[in-house]
Amino acid sequence: MSENAEKKIRIGILGASGYTGGDLVRLLVRHPFAEIAFMTADRHAGKSMDTVFPHLFGQELPPLISVDEIEWGLVDVDVVFCCLPHGTTQEIVRQILTENETIRVIDLSADFRLDDTDVYAEWYGHEHYATDIQPMAVYGLPEYYRERVAKSRLVANPGCYPTAALLGLLPLVEQGLIDTTDVIIDAKSGVTGAGRGLKENLLFGEVAEGIHPYSVASHRHAPEIEQEIAKHAHGAETHVNFTPHLMPMNRGELCTCYVRMTGGATVADLRRTFEARFAGEPFVSIVPEGVTPATRHVRGSNYCLVGLYQDRIPNRAIVVAVIDNLVKGSSGEAIQNMNLMFGLSELTGLEQAPLFP
Amino acid sequence: MSENAEKKIRIGILGASGYTGGDLVRLLVRHPFAEIAFMTADRHAGKSMDTVFPHLFGQELPPLISVDEIEWGLVDVDVVFCCLPHGTTQEIVRQILTENETIRVIDLSADFRLDDTDVYAEWYGHEHYATDIQPMAVYGLPEYYRERVAKSRLVANPGCYPTAALLGLLPLVEQGLIDTTDVIIDAKSGVTGAGRGLKENLLFGEVAEGIHPYSVASHRHAPEIEQEIAKHAHGAETHVNFTPHLMPMNRGELCTCYVRMTGGATVADLRRTFEARFAGEPFVSIVPEGVTPATRHVRGSNYCLVGLYQDRIPNRAIVVAVIDNLVKGSSGEAIQNMNLMFGLSELTGLEQAPLFP
Amino acid sequence: MSENAEKKIRIGILGASGYTGGDLVRLLVRHPFAEIAFMTADRHAGKSMDTVFPHLFGQELPPLISVDEIEWGLVDVDVVFCCLPHGTTQEIVRQILTENETIRVIDLSADFRLDDTDVYAEWYGHEHYATDIQPMAVYGLPEYYRERVAKSRLVANPGCYPTAALLGLLPLVEQGLIDTTDVIIDAKSGVTGAGRGLKENLLFGEVAEGIHPYSVASHRHAPEIEQEIAKHAHGAETHVNFTPHLMPMNRGELCTCYVRMTGGATVADLRRTFEARFAGEPFVSIVPEGVTPATRHVRGSNYCLVGLYQDRIPNRAIVVAVIDNLVKGSSGEAIQNMNLMFGLSELTGLEQAPLFP
Amino acid sequence: MSENAEKKIRIGILGASGYTGGDLVRLLVRHPFAEIAFMTADRHAGKSMDTVFPHLFGQELPPLISVDEIEWGLVDVDVVFCCLPHGTTQEIVRQILTENETIRVIDLSADFRLDDTDVYAEWYGHEHYATDIQPMAVYGLPEYYRERVAKSRLVANPGCYPTAALLGLLPLVEQGLIDTTDVIIDAKSGVTGAGRGLKENLLFGEVAEGIHPYSVASHRHAPEIEQEIAKHAHGAETHVNFTPHLMPMNRGELCTCYVRMTGGATVADLRRTFEARFAGEPFVSIVPEGVTPATRHVRGSNYCLVGLYQDRIPNRAIVVAVIDNLVKGSSGEAIQNMNLMFGLSELTGLEQAPLFP
Repeated sequence: MSENAEKKIRIGILGASGYTGGDLVRLLVRHPFAEIAFMTADRHAGKSMDTVFPHLFGQELPPLISVDEIEWGLVDVDVVFCCLPHGTTQEIVRQILTENETIRVIDLSADFRLDDTDVYAEWYGHEHYATDIQPMAVYGLPEYYRERVAKSRLVANPGCYPTAALLGLLPLVEQGLIDTTDVIIDAKSGVTGAGRGLKENLLFGEVAEGIHPYSVASHRHAPEIEQEIAKHAHGAETHVNFTPHLMPMNRGELCTCYVRMTGGATVADLRRTFEARFAGEPFVSIVPEGVTPATRHVRGSNYCLVGLYQDRIPNRAIVVAVIDNLVKGSSGEAIQNMNLMFGLSELTGLEQAPLFP
Repeated sequence: MSENAEKKIRIGILGASGYTGGDLVRLLVRHPFAEIAFMTADRHAGKSMDTVFPHLFGQELPPLISVDEIEWGLVDVDVVFCCLPHGTTQEIVRQILTENETIRVIDLSADFRLDDTDVYAEWYGHEHYATDIQPMAVYGLPEYYRERVAKSRLVANPGCYPTAALLGLLPLVEQGLIDTTDVIIDAKSGVTGAGRGLKENLLFGEVAEGIHPYSVASHRHAPEIEQEIAKHAHGAETHVNFTPHLMPMNRGELCTCYVRMTGGATVADLRRTFEARFAGEPFVSIVPEGVTPATRHVRGSNYCLVGLYQDRIPNRAIVVAVIDNLVKGSSGEAIQNMNLMFGLSELTGLEQAPLFP
Repeated sequence: MSENAEKKIRIGILGASGYTGGDLVRLLVRHPFAEIAFMTADRHAGKSMDTVFPHLFGQELPPLISVDEIEWGLVDVDVVFCCLPHGTTQEIVRQILTENETIRVIDLSADFRLDDTDVYAEWYGHEHYATDIQPMAVYGLPEYYRERVAKSRLVANPGCYPTAALLGLLPLVEQGLIDTTDVIIDAKSGVTGAGRGLKENLLFGEVAEGIHPYSVASHRHAPEIEQEIAKHAHGAETHVNFTPHLMPMNRGELCTCYVRMTGGATVADLRRTFEARFAGEPFVSIVPEGVTPATRHVRGSNYCLVGLYQDRIPNRAIVVAVIDNLVKGSSGEAIQNMNLMFGLSELTGLEQAPLFP
Repeated sequence: MSENAEKKIRIGILGASGYTGGDLVRLLVRHPFAEIAFMTADRHAGKSMDTVFPHLFGQELPPLISVDEIEWGLVDVDVVFCCLPHGTTQEIVRQILTENETIRVIDLSADFRLDDTDVYAEWYGHEHYATDIQPMAVYGLPEYYRERVAKSRLVANPGCYPTAALLGLLPLVEQGLIDTTDVIIDAKSGVTGAGRGLKENLLFGEVAEGIHPYSVASHRHAPEIEQEIAKHAHGAETHVNFTPHLMPMNRGELCTCYVRMTGGATVADLRRTFEARFAGEPFVSIVPEGVTPATRHVRGSNYCLVGLYQDRIPNRAIVVAVIDNLVKGSSGEAIQNMNLMFGLSELTGLEQAPLFP
């Protein structure tokens, strides 16, 4: 552990009252080198965190404040986690990075994930408000950008679906084992992936005891996944079919990826590739043959489980990846990035075993 | 309505203590022309039905008996529904049809669904015990075999997944609009699809708050779907990828079908084809553009909703079909078949609106 | 069936876009003598009902309108169901009854349930806006006010909790078998009892996988229950402890009532009293000894199940009553009242068996 | 921290394949001073733990063995946790304590919880098989028997319901503030409280979307609660009404206790009593006025939250206590006891924040 670890990392959190913010705090209060300096939640400014998230009772936490109360040039924090809604983060991140020379930012929104700001504008419905700093952003998938994350001042934390899908696909893409023009991702997520906003379609009565697809072939995580696949595809054309479904559960995300193998590759080849690629990874595990990954077996943890199967259609294979969308798909991955940025073991504060049942 | 309807149809049920049997009884007690003459449940013989299914309290139902108590040559019933486990039905159905000249059988197991008894043996792990009567069986998907069902003495009621998948695919297959060698069906089902048996993986603790695939590329409904697609594919080769997932809910089944369009077909062509094909169908409905089908909107009912979407991958389309696995996927479809066999309107006893929430 | 039944009852529904309105429509579309003439939903005026409730697809229903569009003096309906929020109903009901001499009203809100308008004002936080017509209102618990309901122009449909609690207590109260100063009702309800409003505490993320009490000793159904118990208590003092809990499920309500028996009464006495009192009731059933009522066994139906148990504390007994809060606790009971008002069998349109699982 | 902590505590677990065993292992693998030496599961002997509990993948754990493989006189462990079913533990615990002079036992079954072995025989339906060692057993509710636990060789870990109920009642009982002849406990529990056995009533289909009471006035936790209340009641007569209900959720337990205050006590008095009594307790917290405890806010943690409310019935109060039945109600409390027995801080290994949502 580096010298940075000897003193605590001072942390600010923007947008602490959503589920992402709540899970970030849940993990940080047990992180041995983390110290939460401030938390913002504009609608709840002045309240204690445990009025917003009663499960955080008894923790020593600062009261929620408004983001306007912070003077970025003066505030004494080492890192800021942005858990604000998409589209509201770009300007504030530019302000932070401009007004303060040392603060580093981990953005959990989608605002800096797409390298091409035109693609951003197309999918998010408004121009990118900080095109000048976009080039600073590192896509924070530690398994692929570990070294760059460590040195970065601005980490764009991946989306939940992209995290699962990319861990299930990139090893195959980078080895040229699958056809990148025919990647079908059937994704399923618990409701916390949709946030804590007051929307009718998130009411218990509308979610329990039923399932449905949404944003069919039009979800914003599609270009994000395509961008990363394309980066590792050695120039090959890339088309990703991404169809998410809402599940009657709180946590958990599963991507069933249907891929066409190329060059005579077999599922055994795919398995060897995965095992080699992720051999040393602390948070990615390949399940044994005959086992199927289940979201409930990673609940509350930062782990990703990947399974591989021969399809009945010749030359097709199926890859299944599961994560907890709030942890490895969001807050846990953000802490993993923080650990990298401050020279800690990636595992720090993230070792707890999944909660089952 | 035919003269047959003037008197009640006398009904026997084999295996009434499972979820399929329970839902069959739930529907039949409100069917205006149905009269339940006997119900068997070997483990529960001698009990009243409401000790096994308390929600059926207050109904006038005969006590559960053992199948051995029935003398098939003498028993006065018009139709027998078999809700026995796969593999246990073939011999008893042969016995019924042989010993009694008038009883007609609707088999809700998989025992007579596969035309080729060798394929049956391969997938179900034992030889077919009634190869001689297999040719009598009509695959009971009313939307495709209405006339044959009406005249049949032995209806093989389709599996739940095949019902949803075939209603979402056959109109496209028969018009030659999709490539039948590249059909990917990502299916999701509530737990009642797996029955009421005592298995650890069906415990609440193992199912709630999580999802997982099972029988990946090896589920027995795959050959059943392939058989029916092949029948309508005008001789084209057929390969179906079928991957089911277990959902933390009781009822509901959703098939997300990823298909490759051929001959320059567009999603608009597909929609027109569906609308024309199912225009007069009482139980199949195409959702409007921009709407996505949800299982909760057919809960408890015999309806199937189908949605159609352009994929982001060129020339690919997505078809989504939802049903209640216990109704349109099992007991309701069986009653629809009974209605056909006895000259009733298919809607009889099946008109109730879905229960939401 | 009376002559009234020969033509359809023309029905108006105010506030059709909530869960109560949705379930009312679900039941009415299958009621053989009901015809829905109009439905209002101010926020959704102009939309079709199936955009608000997709499970009602394919039904022949008028479009949603705004309540302002109705001219009460001219509109041709026989009965109006009010499914508006508490506090918004009093003035409109007065308007209906004043401007139209024939329309009868079944109010599913709490606005006319409390005989004493001062008690109303105390518990609902504002004055009663229609004190003049309050005396017209009949409390619509059919098992107790059948004859008065039949003749009434204004039925105050009971609250969901009061329906279950009163069916479990009134037979004992009217026979003087329990101490009415020490009635403890521990109640549990599914979320649909709280409506379809956009409140954080109704989000799936806040409800699933957990339980909690709410409105402890301060819920508005307490005075409603007390009023009805006092009416049947032959002048005895009445104190009711009512504590509701929110359950992670959609439908179902269970009241566990802890009562102190008086005058040497035994649980056997209580059972006999229940059986005698409810012998002819179509919708109330006493479960056999050794059986416990479960909400899932009345789901979707208008039934109430009651169970009786000896307590371990001497002279104490436990009464358990279950209903579906949206049916017997709301829309089903309202239709039962409508049937009474229009001379139909109470069972009409309410015969469907519970949906389990 | 004492010198005992300098080396790891070597641990054996009997019956590791149930939910209690699984949660014990989940917590112990992150306990800094714990080392699991062996785990038994007779039906699964020879398997790895992660085939039985896939969420424990990647942990370094010994394979499951049969209990017969252990030579108690030779085995090198410091403590044995017994997670065996009720009735199967007494003889094996006697064997352990007899054949080995140093091993200490924490029994999570009910086998040693009742001081009076006749009461045990009456409630558990068979004679007590180790009446000779029953006097050694200390009831392991740390908040009340801390010192005795620390010195004990045999700790009877409390039942889940008793833990919640007693923490909500004992402070009032010991101060003489409530009438111990009229204690009504309406309890609600998630299904994991009933174990992982193959029983029809634990299937998802039988549990989801519904609630019901069970073992009404006859649950085995009633005498356990009564025993402990009586011990602190200064000789007063004690009658407890205990009625549990099954909830459609995995984890969480809530006791709503209806008590009659004596001697003019007020709810304010009760609150002060609780605050004083539990001021230094690491795992018990009194929620502020106006707040209601929710099981989801302690999920996965060892905390107990208690709330206090004035009843509407004069002189009555309501106490609500919530825990996670598998943690504070079972495995977490067992580890808390282990910490006490080995001179560690009670918090060791139990600090993780609740998982919400």
